[in-house]
Amino acid sequence: MATSQSRSPDSEPKVPRTERGRQTLRKLLDAAAKEFGEKGFHEASISGITRRAGTALGSFYTYFDSKDEIFRALVKDMSGQVAAQAGKAVTPDLAGFDIERAALRAFLEFARDNREIYRIIDEAEFVDPASFREHYETTAKRILERLQKGEAAGEFAPGMDEAHAWAIMGMNVFLGLRYSVWGEGNEPDRIADIANAMLRDGIASR
Amino acid sequence: MATSQSRSPDSEPKVPRTERGRQTLRKLLDAAAKEFGEKGFHEASISGITRRAGTALGSFYTYFDSKDEIFRALVKDMSGQVAAQAGKAVTPDLAGFDIERAALRAFLEFARDNREIYRIIDEAEFVDPASFREHYETTAKRILERLQKGEAAGEFAPGMDEAHAWAIMGMNVFLGLRYSVWGEGNEPDRIADIANAMLRDGIASR
Repeated sequence: MATSQSRSPDSEPKVPRTERGRQTLRKLLDAAAKEFGEKGFHEASISGITRRAGTALGSFYTYFDSKDEIFRALVKDMSGQVAAQAGKAVTPDLAGFDIERAALRAFLEFARDNREIYRIIDEAEFVDPASFREHYETTAKRILERLQKGEAAGEFAPGMDEAHAWAIMGMNVFLGLRYSVWGEGNEPDRIADIANAMLRDGIASR
Repeated sequence: MATSQSRSPDSEPKVPRTERGRQTLRKLLDAAAKEFGEKGFHEASISGITRRAGTALGSFYTYFDSKDEIFRALVKDMSGQVAAQAGKAVTPDLAGFDIERAALRAFLEFARDNREIYRIIDEAEFVDPASFREHYETTAKRILERLQKGEAAGEFAPGMDEAHAWAIMGMNVFLGLRYSVWGEGNEPDRIADIANAMLRDGIASR
């Protein structure tokens, strides 16, 4: 399985065909998250990643051609994990504001347990701008779809716009930075309640 | 005036005593914004900065000891410019939500006219984490003070919290990224209206 056969630089990462291969790829991505998160892109090394993963160097080259390529794959993987966490938290019985609350709460917990995600996504702005942009555009699109669905169901006010989605994404990202990455991350319910009440009713005195 | 006398690494940038010195320092900081914004920290050079500023290398060392030091000064300067723009927009006749709208509108215009600000502040997360953190903590503190003042005046709901300030900051930062840096930046009023209405009344259907 381990081959150093070179693939074209634009090729997608090779998809493992066996369960063992899937496990190796997962180990490499998890190790890359630690390596890039601790050292940053420039100081990180392929040998550092394989050492953390406990895999041979050849296994790395089975799936990736370069440090750039595994970084790009990692941003995509983390972006997918954020989406998957929100997806899991949003159970079918939820609607409207409860969906937004569950999605934020899940993100706050995910960021607390994977603090390196901020450093990695933020570094993509410099190392791989296309992935950086794609992560936020994809996330905003997902939020806008929820808002439009809630508008159609009569729960959200008419006129849900892309700007609402970006505003909500910004709220969530900065609350995660402040309370999950820089803070203890031990009050996801309180933070999610504050943000959800603000989203629902605003902060005007009534 | 031009001296290469070395100062201790922790010293504050030297404060110019003459009007001409103030102009030179301003030119150096503006040139640094362009150099770091276009090339990023690692590719940027002191000679690139002085070339853009049209100043002698000696003038640089009058005010800064290193590329790191001018970068740190630049983050502080940009953070101060963001605050100053908001301050100018918030005229004494405004209160409550009108203040928040004016502050966001001013920021959207500032980010459109100084697109490099995102790249510079975001790169500080890696090059100078303390400045990165200070920028956001200072900005959030300023927002929270406005919220508490509005709460005392009966315009904002009781219980304004640091989390509200971070949520509002996140909204503003991401709306600036989407519409001022990645977009044309030609609809600050529409964006400020959407964000302000959401902040005031939320997005619940009524």
